[in-house]
Amino acid sequence: MKLSQRAMEIQASPIRKLMPHAEAAKKRGLKVYHLNIGQPDIPTPQVMIDAYHSFSDKVLAYGPSQGLDIYRQGLVRYYSRYGINLNEDEIIVTTAGSEAITFAMMVVAEVGEEILVPEPFYTNYNGFASMSGIHLKPITTVGENGYQLPPAEVIESFITKKTKAILICNPGNPTGTVYPEEDVMMIGEIARKYNLFVISDEVYREFIYEGLKHTSIMNVPDLEANAILVDSVSKRYSACGARIGCIASKNKEVMSALLKFAQARLCPPTVDQLAALACIDLGDEYFHPLISEYEARRDLTYNALLQIPDIVCVKPQGAFYILATLPVDNVEEFVTWMLDEFSIDGATMMGAPGDGFYATPGLGLNEMRLAYVLNQEDLSKAMHILTEGIEAYNKIKG
Amino acid sequence: MKLSQRAMEIQASPIRKLMPHAEAAKKRGLKVYHLNIGQPDIPTPQVMIDAYHSFSDKVLAYGPSQGLDIYRQGLVRYYSRYGINLNEDEIIVTTAGSEAITFAMMVVAEVGEEILVPEPFYTNYNGFASMSGIHLKPITTVGENGYQLPPAEVIESFITKKTKAILICNPGNPTGTVYPEEDVMMIGEIARKYNLFVISDEVYREFIYEGLKHTSIMNVPDLEANAILVDSVSKRYSACGARIGCIASKNKEVMSALLKFAQARLCPPTVDQLAALACIDLGDEYFHPLISEYEARRDLTYNALLQIPDIVCVKPQGAFYILATLPVDNVEEFVTWMLDEFSIDGATMMGAPGDGFYATPGLGLNEMRLAYVLNQEDLSKAMHILTEGIEAYNKIKG
Repeated sequence: MKLSQRAMEIQASPIRKLMPHAEAAKKRGLKVYHLNIGQPDIPTPQVMIDAYHSFSDKVLAYGPSQGLDIYRQGLVRYYSRYGINLNEDEIIVTTAGSEAITFAMMVVAEVGEEILVPEPFYTNYNGFASMSGIHLKPITTVGENGYQLPPAEVIESFITKKTKAILICNPGNPTGTVYPEEDVMMIGEIARKYNLFVISDEVYREFIYEGLKHTSIMNVPDLEANAILVDSVSKRYSACGARIGCIASKNKEVMSALLKFAQARLCPPTVDQLAALACIDLGDEYFHPLISEYEARRDLTYNALLQIPDIVCVKPQGAFYILATLPVDNVEEFVTWMLDEFSIDGATMMGAPGDGFYATPGLGLNEMRLAYVLNQEDLSKAMHILTEGIEAYNKIKG
Repeated sequence: MKLSQRAMEIQASPIRKLMPHAEAAKKRGLKVYHLNIGQPDIPTPQVMIDAYHSFSDKVLAYGPSQGLDIYRQGLVRYYSRYGINLNEDEIIVTTAGSEAITFAMMVVAEVGEEILVPEPFYTNYNGFASMSGIHLKPITTVGENGYQLPPAEVIESFITKKTKAILICNPGNPTGTVYPEEDVMMIGEIARKYNLFVISDEVYREFIYEGLKHTSIMNVPDLEANAILVDSVSKRYSACGARIGCIASKNKEVMSALLKFAQARLCPPTVDQLAALACIDLGDEYFHPLISEYEARRDLTYNALLQIPDIVCVKPQGAFYILATLPVDNVEEFVTWMLDEFSIDGATMMGAPGDGFYATPGLGLNEMRLAYVLNQEDLSKAMHILTEGIEAYNKIKG
């Protein structure tokens, strides 16, 4: 029985594929600090949990394919707080950001067509591209300039007749890079010039440090026809298990096509939408302490990395990831070794190998993505284990 | 800005596309009896609602991509009650049956390849096929013999080098047909002979009347390599809004590929899985009265249809749909007219035009799918409105 080509080729998640080694370590009695996955330890807001508790419909029914009206109205309020002017007909609720990105890819590109994406990029874009049969064409960015975008002429040199869209993640996963306003404007200009869509993944919108300002693709003037926003409540409200996201555009044709995709799968989960709605008006009183905590975690992680000899990394400006070049040849082997053979005081740590975040073969092999999603005490221990682990590994392997 | 071909071609849901007319009718103050959509009025089991109320994790976290262990263990128990022997590694929890079918299609067929499907079939298969770029090749069945499968040689005549799978829905939506054991065995035999997968959509497993027996694809001997089961809690527990389904196979390669698709979208919703788990041990005490109620609704609907002059329909054996050939030329126009212009005592009714359930152009234009998902009093009123509506329509149009 032969499977489809896409089933053979779709990647195993680089974030999750070494999990059996972590499970084995746990079975041996070790504690494993998970910096491999963006699963925050921040409590989900009590208003959200309360919303699950107060669901009282007699029948847990299908909602509208575009999402519950009341939730889309809530999203309109949410976006307006960020100066993003959307009405509810310009928003479709999705089953998390994953579905939003998949729908966006399928709407803009046909099988065999291309979407440009700055690499390193969120590794699951690869999976969505495999499913939809589109080709992700990477524009390599480098740590030396903080993984910022290259100049317009470099980006334009990647555009072919097959190119249908540019996909950006801002703030960036796995880099933590925040694109300055002029770079978002530049992307908009290129999109207009070449009639490309821009798919902007802004799930880390609030996670910006040092008072930097986030520029949404929806704030670029005269980009109504091109801009597609994808979003999710997963990180924002520490609600990764709710699986609620959305996709938004001011292009009526895009929205009308998206609605047909949405109708095919009937609707996103009903109670989870009500739970997400309960968070929608959380403002600075919720986000300020949250962002301060993440900023402190970032500083702790970054400063700990700087103590490791021969390490290369850039201080992230947003999201909650840091990509570091480690003084080892192959980070996947190193992560496996850490889980299989290294521990301090009954604990070890896990990062995500960097190569999974690149589409260009050979890149990222000696890089590791760390998600600073644990409390500072655990994070300190994890970074200590990493530091000692690298030294021990190089003694053995060197 | 040109959208992708699939975005242009994907169908608008035939079940939902006339909803604006229903909304307009409601705005004019009419009550609309919705027999167009399989949304039961049966209360969701209280244990399920209670499970939402008792969710108490501090962090609403990602679950495993394959679904929560505890829920997959529950599914193992559930299936064993039906003589279906599965272990938890042979099950992946999905975001409803929709995702299960999409994953199944993507795993077995490449873009441009074919899946055979008896028509009329569940219309959203079209949407999933558009997304995954596969071609659904219909094997037309007819009401004269209860939409049963044609003989093996007829089915085999549809098989080409591009054919990768046969997709069946048993019990059937929109036909209510239950395949006898020998026909499920026949499908298995064909699959073995031609190395095809069988994707079996069994979401209506329990909805079988007159003591008929359901034969699962998982009960066909020697079909471990070929059989893929897709399932959902939506209808079973009147929980369409939970969006919890699953996909199961004993083919390890299939499961390993499916896991990669599942990893790309991270996980199905967490709390909804716990809610579905709360229902998993519901047995005859839950299903017996439920099935009796649906059987009575079926009888009511069928008997009411028989009173309409020149109507053709088959008494369904399962699910909760009936497909009827109405004495009108075009059911889409008739449904629109009913919503726009016809009412009795401040109420009208809505069915789903039949052509959306066929892939062969021109078929089903004078058919209507009725979902008998309302209580018997409402159902009676709806059928009365339909009967009078047909007469009035033919007087005007005839």
